[in-house]
Parts: sequence; C-alpha cells; structure tokens
Amino acid sequence: MMRAARMHGYKQPLQIDDVPVPEPGPDEVLIKVRATGMCRSDYQLLDGYFPLDIEFPYIPGHEVAGEVAQLGSAVPASAGLSEGDLVVVDPAWGDGTCRQCHEGNEQLCTGSGGWIGFGPPGGFAEYVTAPSRHLIRIDPEAGLAPQYLAPLVDAGLTPYRGMKKLRAAGRLGPGRTVLVSGIGGLGSYGVQYARLLGDGATVVAFARSDDKLTVAKENGADHTVNTRGKTPDQVRAELTELTGRGEIDAALDCSGAPQSLELNASLLAAEGSLVSVGLMGQRVEFPLFLFVSGERSFSGSFWGNYNDLTEVLALAAQGRIKHTVTPVKLDDINDKLDALARGEVIGRQVVVFD
Amino acid sequence: MMRAARMHGYKQPLQIDDVPVPEPGPDEVLIKVRATGMCRSDYQLLDGYFPLDIEFPYIPGHEVAGEVAQLGSAVPASAGLSEGDLVVVDPAWGDGTCRQCHEGNEQLCTGSGGWIGFGPPGGFAEYVTAPSRHLIRIDPEAGLAPQYLAPLVDAGLTPYRGMKKLRAAGRLGPGRTVLVSGIGGLGSYGVQYARLLGDGATVVAFARSDDKLTVAKENGADHTVNTRGKTPDQVRAELTELTGRGEIDAALDCSGAPQSLELNASLLAAEGSLVSVGLMGQRVEFPLFLFVSGERSFSGSFWGNYNDLTEVLALAAQGRIKHTVTPVKLDDINDKLDALARGEVIGRQVVVFD
Amino acid sequence: MMRAARMHGYKQPLQIDDVPVPEPGPDEVLIKVRATGMCRSDYQLLDGYFPLDIEFPYIPGHEVAGEVAQLGSAVPASAGLSEGDLVVVDPAWGDGTCRQCHEGNEQLCTGSGGWIGFGPPGGFAEYVTAPSRHLIRIDPEAGLAPQYLAPLVDAGLTPYRGMKKLRAAGRLGPGRTVLVSGIGGLGSYGVQYARLLGDGATVVAFARSDDKLTVAKENGADHTVNTRGKTPDQVRAELTELTGRGEIDAALDCSGAPQSLELNASLLAAEGSLVSVGLMGQRVEFPLFLFVSGERSFSGSFWGNYNDLTEVLALAAQGRIKHTVTPVKLDDINDKLDALARGEVIGRQVVVFD
Amino acid sequence: MMRAARMHGYKQPLQIDDVPVPEPGPDEVLIKVRATGMCRSDYQLLDGYFPLDIEFPYIPGHEVAGEVAQLGSAVPASAGLSEGDLVVVDPAWGDGTCRQCHEGNEQLCTGSGGWIGFGPPGGFAEYVTAPSRHLIRIDPEAGLAPQYLAPLVDAGLTPYRGMKKLRAAGRLGPGRTVLVSGIGGLGSYGVQYARLLGDGATVVAFARSDDKLTVAKENGADHTVNTRGKTPDQVRAELTELTGRGEIDAALDCSGAPQSLELNASLLAAEGSLVSVGLMGQRVEFPLFLFVSGERSFSGSFWGNYNDLTEVLALAAQGRIKHTVTPVKLDDINDKLDALARGEVIGRQVVVFD
Repeated sequence: MMRAARMHGYKQPLQIDDVPVPEPGPDEVLIKVRATGMCRSDYQLLDGYFPLDIEFPYIPGHEVAGEVAQLGSAVPASAGLSEGDLVVVDPAWGDGTCRQCHEGNEQLCTGSGGWIGFGPPGGFAEYVTAPSRHLIRIDPEAGLAPQYLAPLVDAGLTPYRGMKKLRAAGRLGPGRTVLVSGIGGLGSYGVQYARLLGDGATVVAFARSDDKLTVAKENGADHTVNTRGKTPDQVRAELTELTGRGEIDAALDCSGAPQSLELNASLLAAEGSLVSVGLMGQRVEFPLFLFVSGERSFSGSFWGNYNDLTEVLALAAQGRIKHTVTPVKLDDINDKLDALARGEVIGRQVVVFD
Repeated sequence: MMRAARMHGYKQPLQIDDVPVPEPGPDEVLIKVRATGMCRSDYQLLDGYFPLDIEFPYIPGHEVAGEVAQLGSAVPASAGLSEGDLVVVDPAWGDGTCRQCHEGNEQLCTGSGGWIGFGPPGGFAEYVTAPSRHLIRIDPEAGLAPQYLAPLVDAGLTPYRGMKKLRAAGRLGPGRTVLVSGIGGLGSYGVQYARLLGDGATVVAFARSDDKLTVAKENGADHTVNTRGKTPDQVRAELTELTGRGEIDAALDCSGAPQSLELNASLLAAEGSLVSVGLMGQRVEFPLFLFVSGERSFSGSFWGNYNDLTEVLALAAQGRIKHTVTPVKLDDINDKLDALARGEVIGRQVVVFD
Repeated sequence: MMRAARMHGYKQPLQIDDVPVPEPGPDEVLIKVRATGMCRSDYQLLDGYFPLDIEFPYIPGHEVAGEVAQLGSAVPASAGLSEGDLVVVDPAWGDGTCRQCHEGNEQLCTGSGGWIGFGPPGGFAEYVTAPSRHLIRIDPEAGLAPQYLAPLVDAGLTPYRGMKKLRAAGRLGPGRTVLVSGIGGLGSYGVQYARLLGDGATVVAFARSDDKLTVAKENGADHTVNTRGKTPDQVRAELTELTGRGEIDAALDCSGAPQSLELNASLLAAEGSLVSVGLMGQRVEFPLFLFVSGERSFSGSFWGNYNDLTEVLALAAQGRIKHTVTPVKLDDINDKLDALARGEVIGRQVVVFD
Repeated sequence: MMRAARMHGYKQPLQIDDVPVPEPGPDEVLIKVRATGMCRSDYQLLDGYFPLDIEFPYIPGHEVAGEVAQLGSAVPASAGLSEGDLVVVDPAWGDGTCRQCHEGNEQLCTGSGGWIGFGPPGGFAEYVTAPSRHLIRIDPEAGLAPQYLAPLVDAGLTPYRGMKKLRAAGRLGPGRTVLVSGIGGLGSYGVQYARLLGDGATVVAFARSDDKLTVAKENGADHTVNTRGKTPDQVRAELTELTGRGEIDAALDCSGAPQSLELNASLLAAEGSLVSVGLMGQRVEFPLFLFVSGERSFSGSFWGNYNDLTEVLALAAQGRIKHTVTPVKLDDINDKLDALARGEVIGRQVVVFD
C-alpha cells in the first residue's frame, strides 16, 4: 500500500488515502516518487478549469522525479534503465498517431494521448507508473536533488519552450528588450531563460509583488516593474526610464491573466511577439490596428516536448539554473494549494517524499 | 495644370480640383498616372479611421500605375528608368534609419517614413511624383495593362505577404486546409495565393455574399461557405461536410471584421495560424486556453515590401493572376467609394486615366 | 513458405529462394506484399556502397506496399488497422532514444534504429513484417494501385523532403529558378515537386538523356537541358537563353554524381541553395570564395519522415502526382537491377506480386 | 593634403603618399579617421586573391572608425549626424536595385554596389568619405575608443553573422557543442559569440597555436584543441575526452583553410551545420554520403549587414565584448601586413591616427 493525495470531486480538498501500489504494464516502469512539484494548474484542475474527463478518485501531480523501483516485463534494453536510477518523468504521453506526435510534440497530441497528472495517475503519491520511453535518466554525478528536478518538468520546462518560440521568431538579441511577466513558479525560471537565450537582450520583469520581483532580479532581470495598480501609460513611462525605450520586442507572459496579456500587447514594438504560457484567464482582447499595421503577433506555447526537457536538464546539470524551491509535506498539500490559488507562493513548492 | 480628387476634410466627399502638376525633386520621378486602384482603406482614410496627420487639401490614392513623364535631376542610371516607361509605384517609402527599413520592410518604418496616398500625395490625379528607387519598371512585353497593374500594389500585394507568413509558419502543404475569409478586393487575390503558394493544401473561402464566393471559386477555392447568419458550429458542420475535417490549419483574414477573426480562430486546428491583413474593426477577442494549449497563433501582416511586390508582378507577368477589375472614372469616385463602404464591390474598382 | 529475392553476399546476383513466412512480433504486422519498388540504392547495397552491417542471406527492398495479413498480439486499436487493409510501410524505424527520433526524424536515428531493406528484411518477398506504428493505411476510395504507391516510399518521398528544404530556405517563389538534376526514379518526381511547391518558380531540369528530359517536361519542367558533354559555360549559356538568367536559386540534385553537384554549384545565384538527395559519388568539391562571398549553401536531405510521407500520399490521393512506373516480375529482378546500374531506366521499375 | 597608404599595383608594398583630402558628395560625409583595423583580407587584396577591378593608386582599409569632419550638402536631418560625432562606417554600400539590397543585405549586392576598402577608397588614410546612410553614430557615453570600434566592422561583425546563421539553423542550445576554428582576428570574437549566442552550448575552439588558444579560453571557450599536426581521429579522440562526445553540432570556421573545413566537416554530428566566414583557400572537398545521410550542411556567411553591425555595437556598448587589439602606426603598415600573412598576429592590429 502507499499514501496518495486524491481528488474525490471538483472543488473539494484532496484526501490522503492509502491505496495499492500500482503494477507497471509490460512497457512501463514503477517509480518510487521522491519529489513532485505543486503547480497552479493543480489548483485549477481541482477547481474544474480544464475541459478534461477525469474519473474519481484521482491522483494529480505532474512534476515528478523519483527512482526506478521496478521495470515492466517488456521494457527494452535501449531504454537504458535500471532499478535505483534517478529519473524525471517526461509528462506528455502522445498516442503516436497524429501529426503532432510525429513531430515530437506529444504534449500537443490531438489523438488519444494524455498528460500525467491530468488523466493518467500523477505523482502526489509514493509510487507512480510511466511508460519507459517517457523517463529521462539523470546522471547522479550532476548532483541534482529530486526537489530541484521535479519543478523542471513544468515550471522549468514551459517557459523554456516559450522563450525558444520568441527566439525562433527572431525577436531576441542585442539591442532588444525581452519581458517576462508574472514571476510565480514559471516566471522565476522564465527570467533566467530570458538571460540565457536572450542573446544580449535587455531583460525586464513585471509582477504585482515586490517579493516576486526580488526573485526576478536575483534570477537575471536587468530591470523590474511592479505593475500593481498602474495604467499602461504609467508602466510605459517607467519602462522608458529604465531602458531608454517605452516598448518591448518580445514578451513571455507566465501569468495568463487578461490584464497582463493586454498590457504586454500594448507595449509591443513593431514586429514584436507576445507568447503566453499562462492559463489564468478565459479570454484575451487585442487592438486590431496595432497588430496588423506593425505585424505584431500573439501565440500560445504549451508545456514542452522531450527534447525541450532534455535541454532544460542539460542547463541544470551545468549549474546554470537557479532553483527557488520550498519543500513541503504531502500532509500539508491542501494548505499549500490554497496559497498557490491566492498567488502567495514565491518560486515553487515541492512535495518531498522520504 | 492637372485634375485631382482631393480631400478637404474628414467625412466629406472628395472634390475634383484643378491643381498644378507637381515638380519632381532631384531623386524623384514625375509619373503620368494611367490607373489608380480604389481601396476600402481610401474610404477609411476619409472616414478618419487611421491615426495619421494629413494636411488638407490632400490627394489620396495608393495603388498607382503610370508612365515616366520626367526624371529628376539626380536620378541615378542604376534606376534603369527612361521617359515613357511603364511603372508601378512601390508604395511604402521608409526613411532608411530604422531596423525595419534595414530589413527591407519599409512599409513598417518606425522612423519618419510614409506611404503614398496616406501622407505623400497619391494617385487620384493625372500626375504624381515618387522617389526613383520606389518605381518598378514593367516589361512592355508582359502585356499587362495599367488597370490590372495598379491593384497589384495593395489588393494584390497585401494578401500575398500574408500568405507568405502562413507558408513560413509551416501551416500550408498537402493534407492541410487553408482558409481565406472576406472575398473583396484583397480576398479575390488571396484565394489565388492560397492555391499558388498552398503547396497542395485544400483552399476554402468564407464570405457573406454568394457573388463574392463565385469569384472565390473562379479564382481557385476548392470549397466556399457563405457565413452570413451562421453560428460557428454551423460553419464547422458545413466545413466538415465539404472537407472531411471541421478545422483549418491556416487562415488569412482579408476582412478585419472581429466576428470574422473570431470565427476563424474558433476553427483553427492545433498549431494553426491566423493572419490578418484586414483592418475593418478596432479590437479582436480570442479564447486563451485554445491558443495556449494548442499553440495557435494570431499575427498581423501589413501591405508588402519591394521584393514582395516584384514577386507579385512576376506572377502577373507569367499570366498566373486573375484580375477582377472594374474600370471607373475619376469623376465618379465618390459614388464608387460609397459602394466600397457598403461592401458591394466585386473585385477591384480602378480609376483609369486616358 | 514464400518466395524471396535474397542476397548471399556482396557483388553477387540475388537468388530467388523459398523461405518461411515470417511471424509478426507482438507489436508488428504481417504484410502480404503487393508491390515493391526497385531503387538504385538496391543496386548500391549489393555493390557494397553502404557502410552497413548486413547478415546474409538477406532480403532487400525498401519501397513496400501491401495488405495487412495478420496483426501481432499487442497491436493497439489506435493503430487503426484491420486485415485486408491496403498499407504502405513508413521505411525508417528509429529506436526512439535520440534527438532525431524525438523530432520525428527517425530516418536520421543515431541510436540503434534501422531502415527496412537495409537491415530489417525488406520487400522483395511475398511477405514482410513491420512495426504497426510504421504502417500508413491507404483509403481504398483514393484508387491508388500498389504499384504506384510503392515508389512513393522513397523515389516519391526523398525529393519531396529535399524540395521542402529548399522551400524552408526561402529559395523558391515567383521570379526564382529551381533546378532538378538527374531525372531517374527520384528526379521524375522531383520536377513535379518543383512545380507543386515552387510557388511560381521557373522549373528547369538537367539530365544526360533526352528520354529522361521528355519525362521531366511531361512532369512539369518549364525548360530542360541535356548536359551530356557540355562545359559549365555552355550549360550557363543555354540556361540564359531558356530563362533569361544564367543562374539558379535552388537546386535539387537527384543524381549524387560529383560532376552534377559541381555543375549545379557553379550556377547558383547569390544566396542560392543546393540540396543533394543523390548518393552516387563519394566526394564533392566546391569553390570556397563563391560559397562564402555569396552565402551559398550545400546540404544533404535524407529520405523522409512519417509526416513527409503522409503529405506525399495526400498529394497522390488528390491525383496530383504522375507516376512513371514499369511493372516487373520478381524473377527478372537481377536483369532489372543491372539496367538501373547502367542508368537506363526511365521512371521507376516496381516488382509486382500477384 | 593628407597621408594615405596606397596600392600602386598587386604584390607590391603599400606606399605612404601625400594626397588631397577628398570632397564629400551631396549625400556623403567626410570622416576624420581615428582608427582603421588591419585584416587578413587586406593582405589578400594586395596579393590579388579577390576577383575585383581596382584602379591604382588605391587606398585600402575597410574597418573604419572616425569623427564627422564635414557633412555633404544634401545629407538629410534624419541621418542624425553632426560634426564631431564619433561614427563607424557600415562597410557595404549596395546600389539598392537587387533583391539582396531590398532584403537589407547590401554586402551581398549583385548590382553595382561596393565595399569600402575594396572599391571605394578605404581607411588607411587620415580622411575618407562615405554615404551618410552608412554611418552609425556611437553614443559617447558608451566609452568605446576608436581602436576598439574599428575592428567591430569586420573582425567583430563577420563571425557574429556566421553565428547567427548557426543559431537560425537550430544547431545551438543546451547539450550541443559549438566549435570555432581559427582563432585569429575573427575567431577571437567568434568564441565570444559562441558563448553569447550559444544558449548554453559547450564552446570548443580549434587553432594551430597555443597562444591563440589562450585568447580563445580568455574569450569564453570551454575547451580548446591545438590541431597542428593531428589527424582527424586524434582530434576526435581529444574532443571526446574534453566534452564526452566526439562530434560537434555547429562549427564556425574563421580560417577558410581547406584542411580546417574538412576537419570540421568530418566531426559534424547528424544535422550538423558548418558555416565558413574565412577565405583562405580556393576549394573545399566534402564526403557526400556523410552530408546526405545525416543531413549535414555547409554554407558561407559574408561580412554582415547594417542591423548585424548595430547588434554588435549594442553588445560592445553593454561591455560584453572583449577586445584583443594591438595599436599600430600607419608607417609600419607593410610590416604589420606581413605578420598577418604569416598568421602571427594575436587578435587585431589597428592603425591608430592621432
């Protein structure tokens, strides 16, 4: 038996239940969970935000690091896995039939694929199973503790992919300004990628709390603006004072709040790109003439694929990623989810198992 | 002296005035106008839609084809121009100081550049001047009459650039569906580019009039949907019946109407791109989860640059572009603008000078 | 038992042997082969060109179309396969562990992946097995006979991917010239893609036989040049006469012969791209100043991935691909390979099974 | 009168002559030269390497920083220039008629454009003229001395553009290895860009002298290999020991020596890209199967355009570029050119004018 935090319905607290340890299928691996990150989307899952079809009781948790406890009967040698290996779980398991899966973007699977913690049982439990091809082995010499690895699976991965989209759009580089807005779990990594992938761009962070902006500064932001209660014109004036320009070339919005997206859009330079990885709101509104006449763009970026995750892990192994992690206990999970919902968390809370 | 249709204020009819023929500056060329296309944006200019600073009286008209009447004193031999040459006017004249100009995108100039017909005097007149480097000489052997050339400068150019953006986004090709919505002046060319640049994609056209959809069919649409009075679900059902899929991979919106953009967005497949070249509305609203979770994107595309225009002219010279043109007289210009404003025009009206 | 053409060593004729019908593994499918294309690379495999590790006796043949004869015990329902289904075999089976596999480019697998007919047993036999996820079901309503489907797996696929690389490089479009050189099995499809994906570019074909150039013309080339015995200057002069320019913007070399690649390179315009899909030679030599000062490029393109193949099949299903196919018998395979080696084959020879 | 180092023929030393100060044309600016960098290509110009049509006597020198001494009569206010301004000269002056110029790539002009120091008189003189639109004003607050600015115009610019091509090819990022080979004038900047734009890639430098590799280390290389006298297999073994992999994903060759290019090519990983900015040799030879089967690529990158140069200057203004500069006197120019020809120069020699 194992302990697991389970949903028994929407808008109800999780319950800590004793349930059987799952059996791995032929190509699956049983993982002894060492750490599972807590994401605002966990709160949203409980709140019914996502159009998903979940059967209760259900174990959420999608940022999982652990140890290989048992290999399924048909796990191939090419998987390169042994009992005791430290692994993280590549979270999106496509069904391999759609164009997106065949591009390697299983997180966008339009077939019958699923995401751990949003369909297949997740990591708020002492054990979890996952397909062998979705485990990434961590070199023990890298010295990365599970509590730092777990958040890389979403908080560390999602803004990385978003920043790559801004880079691919040609919006980064010397003389440019890149904005990261919303310095919660994702944004505290996002500012780091703005520096690492920004190729010399000036990095600006927006948040509505000075504590979060302090993290942004520590993680690489050149300048920060506390946008709480400010009009777009006030923010523009502050930006001008800080950077010499009242506009931004690239924006990664990690909040998903409509007012944040709309503020960012209003500050975009000609040819500027706004990428959203956040999911807080329902709808977003943009001025048409601004977008058309200046060829501005808005696009979503969703989680990350296997190669994205290996790149994030490579950065972490090189010691280039700063972690802002608070370890928490499974028993405290409901209180910690409430704090997330209230936007009070600095960095990432991670459930650590002994 | 020459005849010219001039604005004397916003929301007033143009007046046909007799005014002096302009003198070309040292690096300018005097053009005897042969044909100037009429664009919905001409109506919008009169209506005060654009945030421009125009001094009255003012001659609009931005789709200009004509003959070289006189070369300025310092026009370089490398311009390759002689009196009598048939030319079109590359419409956007950047100031050469900004990043956009240095990329060749003078239509996006963020310095002090201007667009003929929206600042520098335009082509609703018997003569106009333009910088020599913004004239494109037309080979007389191509057999292209001025009335067909003029609309290529905007109606034929703008959707071409938009379609190139969809192609660059990787959203065209065999097995894909590409939508062109709004089959007015721009859209009647847009469907042609969907076929020419679509690389085998299925081409669908949306409009709110069967007459316009007839043009779309003639110009290369595989399927058409009259969206007037239909809900998104009804349109999706019709699309499914026509193409076997209820979604589109790429959409070029030529209308700029919010309801059209929002309908298109609601039909986007995962990774789908919506490009707008139309400017009818003020604001547009999108569902956030759809964009983020499926990595959908929205971007503007604005007019076209010099190389874009030479490519459009190359297609025309090869006889690959169908023109849907109605010649009109300068004296009738106010009536014809009213028809444009009411959305009643099929294809393009072009003022033809003798 | 089944009949199969097998290698018993390098530089020896194939032998038609009676061998057991293979058993499909749990996730494999047994295919009753209906048609298998004959490729110059089959001759090269026999000749020892490839650095592969093959165990004899071995059945080559990598362009396979057939019918599902039996599903392995663990083939998932999501594969969507039933006995009797017409399928083609996606030819490259990556091991899923490397970056290339995770991008969907299993044909480039740097792990332990393999290609049917170059490692796993191929299709010059009455039956063959393949992993279920590498079968693409063909809609019987498309009316595509196996002898036309089989060559699409390599001859039809490889130049398609190459042409996509030229398109992605921005070298196609109106006013450009695109060259396809070497009009054998691959090139006869290549010229079609030059037209279909060329976006208005002028299509030129080079070959050393008028019969092959006749196929090129029928398949969409605007102009052809028989390069046999001509110097680069002579070819350039002929090109100038035909197209008005003595240079090309994009070249797809389907031969792989060094003299062909070097001729193509010498004709590249500034920023021009040369993509090779052919493999005839060992080495290729380029002039350095030409490449550096004009930012010319050379790159290889290898076979195609799953999505590429589905796109080719979509074009075929739309009736947009012309097939130049000669059906042959398994018993005649050695004679037909000799004809391939001598460069005498027009279009594609396909072994057809009853 | 002014002093100028002039060519009086090929393969002859420069002569220091007294010649008239040039008069700026209407749109030109007279510049009092403060510093002009010395490039290996200056030696090659004297040696007759380039297929150029130069009239003697001729003043070379293409890396020019100086002060505005006099504005031509028609220099527009939008140029933003005043007497005394510190400027660098954007070196490539296209004629504005070709596709390349209209893309902003005037350095690739296929019309009648020219490069300062290779056609228009260059900067080995106390004064030089240049078109006003090719001057970039340097903010005096940036604190950048002319001797550090001048080399940025070629040595600092050329590898920057090359590295951008590798980035655009998708070959940089965490877990990748990027190589810079040839650590002379260009390479000493190249390794810096490998770090700045490498997005976390491991940076390796190759050279044939330990002194140059010391500069590479100081400028950001993680690892260095002295390749003198080593076989490709020996180099691969050393690379494996240093990085854990015997291959590279991206290579920027700054030497142009055939053996360097061929070594780099032999080490490319699947999908690897080799970009050459060097021009030492005449021809380069590659193995065909390696390029085709692994989709490797080779391309040239030439100098840089206006936007590239502004980006380099932005990096310099931020203090992110290390300069390895030796000031020299105009009178010593022939000796210093000889040292360049022998490959003995560490970093960049710059002629400094008082």
